[in-house]
Amino acid sequence: MLRFALCQLNYIVGDIEGNKQKIVSAIQKAKKEQVHIAVFSELSICGYPPYDLLFDEAFIQQSIDAIQFIANECKDIVAIVGGIDRNLSEGKALFNTAFVLTNGNIIAKYNKALLPTYDVFDEARYFEPSYQPLVIEIFNKKIAITICEDLWTKSLDPEPAIGKPQYQYDIIEKLKTQQPDYLINIAASPFSYTQITHRYEILHGAQLKLNCPIVYVNQVGVHTDLIFDGGSIFIDNNGYHICHFFNEDLRIVDPNQILYNHFNPNPIRFIYDALVFGIKDFFQKNKFSKAILGLSGGIDSAVVAILAADALGAHNVHALLMPSRYSSNHSVTDAIELCQRNHITYDIISIEPVFSKTEEILLPIFSGKKPDITEENIQARIRAIYLMAYSNKHGHVLLNTSNKSEMATGYGTLYGDMCGAISVLGDVYKTQVYELARYLNHDRERIPQHIIKKTPSAELRPNQKDSDSLPPYEILDGILFQLIEQQQTVEDIINAGFDKETVYKVFALLYQYDFKRYQAPPVLRISPKAFGFGRRIPLVKILSY
Amino acid sequence: MLRFALCQLNYIVGDIEGNKQKIVSAIQKAKKEQVHIAVFSELSICGYPPYDLLFDEAFIQQSIDAIQFIANECKDIVAIVGGIDRNLSEGKALFNTAFVLTNGNIIAKYNKALLPTYDVFDEARYFEPSYQPLVIEIFNKKIAITICEDLWTKSLDPEPAIGKPQYQYDIIEKLKTQQPDYLINIAASPFSYTQITHRYEILHGAQLKLNCPIVYVNQVGVHTDLIFDGGSIFIDNNGYHICHFFNEDLRIVDPNQILYNHFNPNPIRFIYDALVFGIKDFFQKNKFSKAILGLSGGIDSAVVAILAADALGAHNVHALLMPSRYSSNHSVTDAIELCQRNHITYDIISIEPVFSKTEEILLPIFSGKKPDITEENIQARIRAIYLMAYSNKHGHVLLNTSNKSEMATGYGTLYGDMCGAISVLGDVYKTQVYELARYLNHDRERIPQHIIKKTPSAELRPNQKDSDSLPPYEILDGILFQLIEQQQTVEDIINAGFDKETVYKVFALLYQYDFKRYQAPPVLRISPKAFGFGRRIPLVKILSY
Repeated sequence: MLRFALCQLNYIVGDIEGNKQKIVSAIQKAKKEQVHIAVFSELSICGYPPYDLLFDEAFIQQSIDAIQFIANECKDIVAIVGGIDRNLSEGKALFNTAFVLTNGNIIAKYNKALLPTYDVFDEARYFEPSYQPLVIEIFNKKIAITICEDLWTKSLDPEPAIGKPQYQYDIIEKLKTQQPDYLINIAASPFSYTQITHRYEILHGAQLKLNCPIVYVNQVGVHTDLIFDGGSIFIDNNGYHICHFFNEDLRIVDPNQILYNHFNPNPIRFIYDALVFGIKDFFQKNKFSKAILGLSGGIDSAVVAILAADALGAHNVHALLMPSRYSSNHSVTDAIELCQRNHITYDIISIEPVFSKTEEILLPIFSGKKPDITEENIQARIRAIYLMAYSNKHGHVLLNTSNKSEMATGYGTLYGDMCGAISVLGDVYKTQVYELARYLNHDRERIPQHIIKKTPSAELRPNQKDSDSLPPYEILDGILFQLIEQQQTVEDIINAGFDKETVYKVFALLYQYDFKRYQAPPVLRISPKAFGFGRRIPLVKILSY
Repeated sequence: MLRFALCQLNYIVGDIEGNKQKIVSAIQKAKKEQVHIAVFSELSICGYPPYDLLFDEAFIQQSIDAIQFIANECKDIVAIVGGIDRNLSEGKALFNTAFVLTNGNIIAKYNKALLPTYDVFDEARYFEPSYQPLVIEIFNKKIAITICEDLWTKSLDPEPAIGKPQYQYDIIEKLKTQQPDYLINIAASPFSYTQITHRYEILHGAQLKLNCPIVYVNQVGVHTDLIFDGGSIFIDNNGYHICHFFNEDLRIVDPNQILYNHFNPNPIRFIYDALVFGIKDFFQKNKFSKAILGLSGGIDSAVVAILAADALGAHNVHALLMPSRYSSNHSVTDAIELCQRNHITYDIISIEPVFSKTEEILLPIFSGKKPDITEENIQARIRAIYLMAYSNKHGHVLLNTSNKSEMATGYGTLYGDMCGAISVLGDVYKTQVYELARYLNHDRERIPQHIIKKTPSAELRPNQKDSDSLPPYEILDGILFQLIEQQQTVEDIINAGFDKETVYKVFALLYQYDFKRYQAPPVLRISPKAFGFGRRIPLVKILSY
């Protein structure tokens, strides 16, 4: 039997030098533990996804050179490392490659066959596929090597996600005949609350079909919007041993003495963990330490404040409370209570003086027109000025607090409350925000009940309520989920029992505000279909259906 | 000989109903002109690019149904129409298809082989390729049908653009043996100032290799950032007949009596035409009529104002002049002179009162820190509030005036001067902005000389000049062009004679501000490599080279 090291590391995209050192150091640790094979994740050399850095010749050459450097460090140990290789033939210039390294040599290369090109994935933009399975004998064992999507075959994934094809090529069928002793899959599979179980099912399916243990190593780390959760795993006939989620983990697995463990894929806990990790690693990789956000007294900003405090430490989070003439009395008191309960510092600065001055100055160019959405947006934009000024002056980084329901329906002010370096809740529906709030309160009342119970309002005009403009959130979110995550048609959704007029209204809103989302911050992705790079809708369009 | 109609039409993405009617109406006109074959552009049914609308089942079915509807309207005429078809086998769910229609029947289908997946193109995300050339006999002539990229073969395009592969498949070689009488290529090829000549060279090359006339029909119209210029063309041994650029054109071409013409690919004139069309069609498709912009007295906003006036009519353009304590005397007088010379209305509203009030209110949270970039950004953001307030109150749409050199180096304020519905000059380097200004002044001095001659300054602090922070624009733009359009490495550029330190500085700036560009408006694309969807750079990264 072979001893494996599942090297679940957190890479920085582009930092080939740093990633290389990290890999070498893990190999050295693995060697001390008498490991036979140290396994690293997909594109570990350059971090995933490198996007168009893959067109940069200096980047390509440095990535390739790094592989040889690592090979030289593999003394009496085998390492399987994800990197890029040149395609010297026609087609795309590169392969997405798993290198098998030992004693200064690249003893084998496997090029990825199935290149995900849907949702957030664009691999066909960069890589040429290759349909040559690799089974290599190492220490007298037959080791099959695959890369991530390669296992997402028809036989294992009969109901593919939106945009994912049923691939013709089935590597499992090809490998079966070769009866490998182990199957290794190196991956860069981002988190979603459905992916954690789906991924396990695929791997378990592969284990059953090939009747050999599976060694799966996933990347961990936050790459702007994409949260890679890790969850690397060894699976055999008797169970599995799974690594940490949302943390680096260098796990030694000896098939002779496996400590089987288990994980509970509780979605709301995973969403909480993912968002905290999302903030934390985004800040770390950017060398940011402190966050600023606006606290309205509402539930969204309250939840973001706590997530930020849990990610960065409460002492690194500062809040601005920016009441206006339309703010309810409780908006400030609730926000203060939230800060006090969670040891978050805050300042109160009214937007009223600047708002009044702006109204006065703009009066001549408003041509006597009545107050309308203009004045609402001005308020939201003055708050953005305050927050960005605090950010610029003190180096705190602005967290956006919009939720997915608002982003979907355009219920927010561009250059106002839509500002921020990263959107924490932009992939979390309002109803899920409530769930998160209850989860945060499971031990003690971190979020005052009044914040959870109050009627949602933007407080930009007298007695405004979200429900003046939007359907109740339980209904809105239900319809949005069908439209976005399930890609159902309007007709399907009406047939499923939703009110026709409401469905049409939500559909129209969803496709009306793509222009706002275009200029929104990157959104931490926790669902199978988030706003951003994985959902590409034309801005200028007419939908005639 | 066959009479062709080159139906170069302007479609709206998603508006299958409207596009269908437009196609039918062109078929009827063509029929009156005794046309044998009416040719429409790629994906004419749904407009190009439809992006992820292609995952919507209602959209797919309506697109397919529209083809049969059009077939029924083809009485005694043949139409070649671009649309989508289902792939009933494994792989991606759809084909990018050319349908050959006549007398109620779909008499043939051709599925695109080469699916561009680089720069702004993502076709592998949606379509399955198909490698079955189609030569169909129509009216006793052998007609080969191809779609856009199909002709960008190795033999015709030996030096492919960044990210474009050398395709293995060469349809020209396959078609040669069949000796077609005509080759038809239906396309959706967006404008760039290099593409207009490159495209002609490819088509001319195909004509020579196949020794038969080429009928090329391109889409015209602005699809957010992408400007499709048209330029449909008939080429035979003796020359060519080319349609209008930047306009719909239903051109009847009778190979017996061709009126050969020619076009002069003057880049600056084409850039001017493209940008004017870019604004005009963006507004028309969005049902906008009026534009607002901030006039600083500098050259960028002056050029945008005139482009907008030429696109929308001067009476539809309104300017805000928003001086501050740091504005030079000439900034307002120059802007006024520009407005007067071009019949653009304006208001002058100082940002000073709101700026002072904001400084006063924020004083307590600035902890006694000295003025810095914070105060500069506040000024830019107050201007954004004014402009967006005007926009919200009067329905004018805000034009962004940042140029490509600024966008590349992060020389602009997010949520400040980086605001707008569309960026007019975001793909135009500062040195090209000067070229444009001289071009605009070729008849009369539309832009006062003083605006052209003054030293560029953001005027956000006393005596500020762009050259305090940036290299001179001639050098900066030269380096940026090598980095962006030519994808050269830092080493290449230094070897080409640029100053080492400057090259490293520009490289660092270019990769430092991807986070700002992420939240910038869509940029009208006029170069082979624009910021936006065609250039995908990770936001969080370290470049260790």
